[in-house]
Amino acid sequence: MKILVLNGPNLQLLGRREPDVYGRVTLAEIRRQLDRRARALKVSLDFLQSNVEGELVTAVGESAGRYDGVVFNPAAYTHTSVALHDAIKASGVPCVEVHLSNVAAREDFRRRSYTAPVCIGQVAGFGADSYLLALDGLVGYLRRARAIGAGGRTS
Amino acid sequence: MKILVLNGPNLQLLGRREPDVYGRVTLAEIRRQLDRRARALKVSLDFLQSNVEGELVTAVGESAGRYDGVVFNPAAYTHTSVALHDAIKASGVPCVEVHLSNVAAREDFRRRSYTAPVCIGQVAGFGADSYLLALDGLVGYLRRARAIGAGGRTS
Amino acid sequence: MKILVLNGPNLQLLGRREPDVYGRVTLAEIRRQLDRRARALKVSLDFLQSNVEGELVTAVGESAGRYDGVVFNPAAYTHTSVALHDAIKASGVPCVEVHLSNVAAREDFRRRSYTAPVCIGQVAGFGADSYLLALDGLVGYLRRARAIGAGGRTS
Amino acid sequence: MKILVLNGPNLQLLGRREPDVYGRVTLAEIRRQLDRRARALKVSLDFLQSNVEGELVTAVGESAGRYDGVVFNPAAYTHTSVALHDAIKASGVPCVEVHLSNVAAREDFRRRSYTAPVCIGQVAGFGADSYLLALDGLVGYLRRARAIGAGGRTS
Amino acid sequence: MKILVLNGPNLQLLGRREPDVYGRVTLAEIRRQLDRRARALKVSLDFLQSNVEGELVTAVGESAGRYDGVVFNPAAYTHTSVALHDAIKASGVPCVEVHLSNVAAREDFRRRSYTAPVCIGQVAGFGADSYLLALDGLVGYLRRARAIGAGGRTS
Amino acid sequence: MKILVLNGPNLQLLGRREPDVYGRVTLAEIRRQLDRRARALKVSLDFLQSNVEGELVTAVGESAGRYDGVVFNPAAYTHTSVALHDAIKASGVPCVEVHLSNVAAREDFRRRSYTAPVCIGQVAGFGADSYLLALDGLVGYLRRARAIGAGGRTS
Amino acid sequence: MKILVLNGPNLQLLGRREPDVYGRVTLAEIRRQLDRRARALKVSLDFLQSNVEGELVTAVGESAGRYDGVVFNPAAYTHTSVALHDAIKASGVPCVEVHLSNVAAREDFRRRSYTAPVCIGQVAGFGADSYLLALDGLVGYLRRARAIGAGGRTS
Amino acid sequence: MKILVLNGPNLQLLGRREPDVYGRVTLAEIRRQLDRRARALKVSLDFLQSNVEGELVTAVGESAGRYDGVVFNPAAYTHTSVALHDAIKASGVPCVEVHLSNVAAREDFRRRSYTAPVCIGQVAGFGADSYLLALDGLVGYLRRARAIGAGGRTS
Amino acid sequence: MKILVLNGPNLQLLGRREPDVYGRVTLAEIRRQLDRRARALKVSLDFLQSNVEGELVTAVGESAGRYDGVVFNPAAYTHTSVALHDAIKASGVPCVEVHLSNVAAREDFRRRSYTAPVCIGQVAGFGADSYLLALDGLVGYLRRARAIGAGGRTS
Amino acid sequence: MKILVLNGPNLQLLGRREPDVYGRVTLAEIRRQLDRRARALKVSLDFLQSNVEGELVTAVGESAGRYDGVVFNPAAYTHTSVALHDAIKASGVPCVEVHLSNVAAREDFRRRSYTAPVCIGQVAGFGADSYLLALDGLVGYLRRARAIGAGGRTS
Amino acid sequence: MKILVLNGPNLQLLGRREPDVYGRVTLAEIRRQLDRRARALKVSLDFLQSNVEGELVTAVGESAGRYDGVVFNPAAYTHTSVALHDAIKASGVPCVEVHLSNVAAREDFRRRSYTAPVCIGQVAGFGADSYLLALDGLVGYLRRARAIGAGGRTS
Amino acid sequence: MKILVLNGPNLQLLGRREPDVYGRVTLAEIRRQLDRRARALKVSLDFLQSNVEGELVTAVGESAGRYDGVVFNPAAYTHTSVALHDAIKASGVPCVEVHLSNVAAREDFRRRSYTAPVCIGQVAGFGADSYLLALDGLVGYLRRARAIGAGGRTS
Repeated sequence: MKILVLNGPNLQLLGRREPDVYGRVTLAEIRRQLDRRARALKVSLDFLQSNVEGELVTAVGESAGRYDGVVFNPAAYTHTSVALHDAIKASGVPCVEVHLSNVAAREDFRRRSYTAPVCIGQVAGFGADSYLLALDGLVGYLRRARAIGAGGRTS
Repeated sequence: MKILVLNGPNLQLLGRREPDVYGRVTLAEIRRQLDRRARALKVSLDFLQSNVEGELVTAVGESAGRYDGVVFNPAAYTHTSVALHDAIKASGVPCVEVHLSNVAAREDFRRRSYTAPVCIGQVAGFGADSYLLALDGLVGYLRRARAIGAGGRTS
Repeated sequence: MKILVLNGPNLQLLGRREPDVYGRVTLAEIRRQLDRRARALKVSLDFLQSNVEGELVTAVGESAGRYDGVVFNPAAYTHTSVALHDAIKASGVPCVEVHLSNVAAREDFRRRSYTAPVCIGQVAGFGADSYLLALDGLVGYLRRARAIGAGGRTS
Repeated sequence: MKILVLNGPNLQLLGRREPDVYGRVTLAEIRRQLDRRARALKVSLDFLQSNVEGELVTAVGESAGRYDGVVFNPAAYTHTSVALHDAIKASGVPCVEVHLSNVAAREDFRRRSYTAPVCIGQVAGFGADSYLLALDGLVGYLRRARAIGAGGRTS
Repeated sequence: MKILVLNGPNLQLLGRREPDVYGRVTLAEIRRQLDRRARALKVSLDFLQSNVEGELVTAVGESAGRYDGVVFNPAAYTHTSVALHDAIKASGVPCVEVHLSNVAAREDFRRRSYTAPVCIGQVAGFGADSYLLALDGLVGYLRRARAIGAGGRTS
Repeated sequence: MKILVLNGPNLQLLGRREPDVYGRVTLAEIRRQLDRRARALKVSLDFLQSNVEGELVTAVGESAGRYDGVVFNPAAYTHTSVALHDAIKASGVPCVEVHLSNVAAREDFRRRSYTAPVCIGQVAGFGADSYLLALDGLVGYLRRARAIGAGGRTS
Repeated sequence: MKILVLNGPNLQLLGRREPDVYGRVTLAEIRRQLDRRARALKVSLDFLQSNVEGELVTAVGESAGRYDGVVFNPAAYTHTSVALHDAIKASGVPCVEVHLSNVAAREDFRRRSYTAPVCIGQVAGFGADSYLLALDGLVGYLRRARAIGAGGRTS
Repeated sequence: MKILVLNGPNLQLLGRREPDVYGRVTLAEIRRQLDRRARALKVSLDFLQSNVEGELVTAVGESAGRYDGVVFNPAAYTHTSVALHDAIKASGVPCVEVHLSNVAAREDFRRRSYTAPVCIGQVAGFGADSYLLALDGLVGYLRRARAIGAGGRTS
Repeated sequence: MKILVLNGPNLQLLGRREPDVYGRVTLAEIRRQLDRRARALKVSLDFLQSNVEGELVTAVGESAGRYDGVVFNPAAYTHTSVALHDAIKASGVPCVEVHLSNVAAREDFRRRSYTAPVCIGQVAGFGADSYLLALDGLVGYLRRARAIGAGGRTS
Repeated sequence: MKILVLNGPNLQLLGRREPDVYGRVTLAEIRRQLDRRARALKVSLDFLQSNVEGELVTAVGESAGRYDGVVFNPAAYTHTSVALHDAIKASGVPCVEVHLSNVAAREDFRRRSYTAPVCIGQVAGFGADSYLLALDGLVGYLRRARAIGAGGRTS
Repeated sequence: MKILVLNGPNLQLLGRREPDVYGRVTLAEIRRQLDRRARALKVSLDFLQSNVEGELVTAVGESAGRYDGVVFNPAAYTHTSVALHDAIKASGVPCVEVHLSNVAAREDFRRRSYTAPVCIGQVAGFGADSYLLALDGLVGYLRRARAIGAGGRTS
Repeated sequence: MKILVLNGPNLQLLGRREPDVYGRVTLAEIRRQLDRRARALKVSLDFLQSNVEGELVTAVGESAGRYDGVVFNPAAYTHTSVALHDAIKASGVPCVEVHLSNVAAREDFRRRSYTAPVCIGQVAGFGADSYLLALDGLVGYLRRARAIGAGGRTS
């Protein structure tokens, strides 16, 4: 089982500066934690960050056939990118939307997510742990889907 | 460490009927899974379901001093209850919002969450696993908060 | 064939006071008229009123398996209750929305109905007769559905 | 007592085509059912269909003095016609709005009804039965109005 | 100089019924008053009423070359007819919008006028006098336009 | 019979500058035309212009008991002044709203009039003639009101 | 003269916790202050708190005939409850809306009050004093209403 | 302790005219009642009315250093004046917004208050008593603030 | 293969007047061009224009069984006609929406098309060529649909 | 005559996957069809696809002087890109917007096109044929423009 | 070259009070800085402040013929004054809008500027320097305009 | 002191084409003017243009530690880029938003700026001078900040 962890704009800045505000965890550290968890879950993991919407679109589009699932923090593009919405839908690869912060507690323009309706689920607000929980949830989803087909759920 | 798992309206119907649509997992089964995970995490766990908004308001209000955190699926009240918003804020107890389905893929009137801005985070779309991931995330949050104080995070 | 007649908030006040404004028909009188019509239609009928949204949610949820259909006047909760929307949808029991007054002629905030989209139809504006017409319509619908399966219809 | 049954655009197509979608009941058959019910109710009944908004406006305008009440399915003009709103109000003839389908479960642009606020009530979602229920309700309303004057009602 | 007076839906009902509400002035009486004023102004006058939007569109379209100006009470179509907007603009004939009542004091949906932006001006609220004032204003406008070309104006 | 002609902000600039854009008619010239028409109508006329909203509020408030009617061009305050709305309503003096230009053809923010709903009518788009038509209409209204009481009217 | 003081959701938490944020005044202390003031005003006073919207609806509905007026802090239900709007209107008992905080300075979703339009007035922002001022205002209103009938007022 | 009572547009008309509609209480009478209450409360009181927004802005701006608090009925400017919002905020003087009528029961455009968010509280709907209650509330607030510093409060 | 070319309001005016603005191409000339292209495509073609919405509704409704496809310029009714939306949907005949001008560059109220969602496609902005391109596209679509069934497509 | 065919995000995926949903036509196949048609029309054709908004902006900007026209499928960027709006406008090169699917039948957020108002026209819904029709229309437009200058057109 | 510096409501309070919040720079000090810069630029400068919207309207209206340009801080009236919009447009004198603070970072109701669309440009957020930069920009604009006529510019 | 001048999409086209519309000033010329001014101000200056949003995000993110301030013309991305909003905020480097044209006078969709709330100020409408004024303002701000810390300012 192969998972792609995809990271959107400004996440390259994580932990490098203003650690009292954004925490000291860097994206490299998140990657290390994810690698460790991936080994425990016996899945393989690739990791990508880009500030360019079109590169993220390409990565999602190319994930089909290469990856079983995507853990995706689209960051600011969550709220503005119809192109990423279309890419996730077109790829057909199960995707989990992840956010470090609790976006619901921030500006109004962050209330709309273009990516969420085409993802299978969302994890937000747990800092670096959001990624780990998303990975756990995605792997569980994929294993259940292999075993019995993804059943319905509600509320 | 003591956690309250709180469930809103219509969740008593889960799994009892139309299993091809809503899955066969009942709320009792979710409770059993949560109890098992709680024991593994060495936390104690109470479990409550009510269809009455005011009873949920009371449960949240009384959680202060009794519980270290709340895993909350407010179901339909997510989208309409200012009273639950106020209760979570007033209680001061860290709360995680959880949904079985990916609410972002449903009707427009489910886009607004009154509870999310006063929770620490959200997990949605993983079926029964949403609860387990939320519990994991909440316990991690509480342990980190005890160790070093809840630091900032972003995006 | 068994029908539940469900009544929402403030309907307990009907006819008791200000008869020149609200008419002299009490909810008890409406119940008597419905019982008479039910006997004529050879259906059995239960009758419930509650001011508590959660109790109505419970009643709708429990109607599955117990009732063939529901005649429902959600009153004020028509315009605010996502929980009742979910309950009707989850129960799978055919439901008719009924209003004593012509709600379309009243305040703007009464223009939205959360319950109507998950009901099979609506009757509004005929006073106590709204209930009788709704019962007639529901029984006709159920009998037709038994005979030939509920066919499509338009405009 | 004389009733006009008025039908708006596209209703001439009813049952003629795609019977699995729209049902097999034609407008002619609805008329026959209404005639039978009218005889039972001892009222006389005229029946009209037009695709032209202005002809419907004229029919409503001319109903004053000729008819005691109108059963009106304005179809698509329900949602766009201020002219029919004005015609119903100007005519002063009690009017019941009727729809074959449950319009509340359809597109957003069908949520607004220009005719409903000036009708006495609405019946929707019961297929051809909607017309019969509307006729019953209208005749009951007119007889009650003759006997005691149309009293107030609520919710 | 030749003027067309055009009247929209429901104006045929004027004065015939409910004189205590709508006044006793009929459209025929308004026509007589306009004829008298036209003679005084030494202009010729045609008069038309239709409930059919498309017939009004045709009349406006055919006014070019036949009439020097149009006094137009579009009634309900004021608020819904893009077709009349296009007709007035396409005809190029100066048009004055006229209303018997003060539409600004009525329902919100009457606040939008599709015809006003393509008319030269509006007169509303003076009952039958609205027509006479509109005729005066239109004739003054046309004579001034002939004399010196229609100059700019503000506020 | 005594009429007040009231003029709002920027109207003091009329005709003084950019005559090819705003025309050469000054406010003084409009006043002369109104005086002439007033003599013909045998009414007396006062004339006031102010750029200060509060002075216009005072003038309207003091018109009660002093004037039989007001011809009012509120200019920009039309679209923003709740205070003038309240003043006209409180004064109880019949008021006609007048505009030189066809405001319906201008910016969106000019579509709302706070003064129109509390005036008896409106005249717009006829340049200086708007004032004369408004005066004619107001005097006609007042004389009719004296003779028979101001009756209802429609559309 | 008998007054009901009614309190909505989360007010049971008042003063019990986070006194530096919410103040040290408990609901019990507010009740004592109100009792003292009631004795001074020579009125009798009942006091109720509930988190359940439907129980508040019932209390308002039953106030007719039992109480001369209601001092009501609907708290969060202020902004969401059509049912309480209907209850206050149906009861016919004069009601004053009261808030401890200045709700106008808080979130946007608190800007709408469903209860205010059917109350006689509002007092907000004075902490516990809001209740005392509301009681003073209500008793003054009721005594004036008994003496001379409740006259009109403005702005 | 020195209090300024400030009154906005049209309040000079109070009681002078249409006493059956607006009541017979004049602004002068309100001032006398306030003076009496001020003496009882042992505070000194100045009283001002202006129709000019800018004069009210000046009065609020100059209140700093001269007055301990302001009782302010901004009337129509409540709903349109960002300048008064800024003035109250800049002055730093505690201000209570007061309305004679229950503004929440009036037009939609009165739902927004620009002044309320920068006041400490609001009193509305008690006629002339609104001023007295506001004065009581303001003086209580100021004395409490002097004694212990203005503590937090909620809902 | 038989195609109906349908034209909405004001198109009868095309080319007859203001040729510098609207071009010199008349509707008759467009018809001639379409006839020529139809012969080249070996399809038969009928041509209709009406200003009356209801006549267009009738024409669309009657197209089922008579025509294989419709090229439709609904002109102004594009933006206001739910009845044409319903007619196209009910007829089941593939329809192409065509506009002479680039409607996207015009007024905001032309941004909404009620007909587009139930058409198979749109051609706009090519003047008379829009019709020819629409005919080409429609015939291609119909021939492909006959050959292999109309497959899915995207973006 | 030289034409640029420009393709936006996700179009590289066309036909490669889920052929039952998106069809089997690849972008390469569309290019071959366009090349064939270009030869028939005796125009030269370049072809470009990019997922990066900024690269599309550059391509449009550089088209001036190099190309006589652009056939552009901006895909998802249609609905979000002000930058492409500005690029098309700045380039001054006639551009046709093209879509494979009928975007009007899809999500609400696809209703807005930033590019359409600055294109000369649009073709949508004909699958791969959309490109061919757009090319035909563009070449016709350019040849007509060379011959006589691009004249006005309407509706 | 003669410049008018115009200041709106509440700016008289600048620096007089709460210097830690608003800075210690008074309006008099800003005037001195502007005078110094004006001498350096060899332009003459007048300076005005008013809290009254109408006085600002008058000042702008009278600036034509007297001043070559206006530096204008409309403060709160920026967001509410159509009258100032009209005044600037009518005067024809080039105007620069200036703000001390970065208004874009403040409340939503400050997002709309009525004056900006009729100014030549804006400077905001530089404190007292905003005025100096605006003066520099305006003088540069006027000198360039004299030399070569104000050319186009973009983005 | 080191300043980065950053330029968004389409600015590479400046002055190269349509000089009568966009002016003859190229971006290279603006750079030369800025270099000259930078030397006068004794600051060092880097200059960058990109059409790719993600490259601008990267440039802003990397400015921290390298530059003391940024002069930024985000062009079209001003109105759509949450990613640039986040980049500016995350970088912590003082940024001035600059526009050549007066954006407030253009399309509605340019009214929203995502970048402005996280900049220190804005300069718009002065053509190439906008950059010079922004540089002056930024350098002044930085020097004042170094000397005394950036104090508060208002309106």
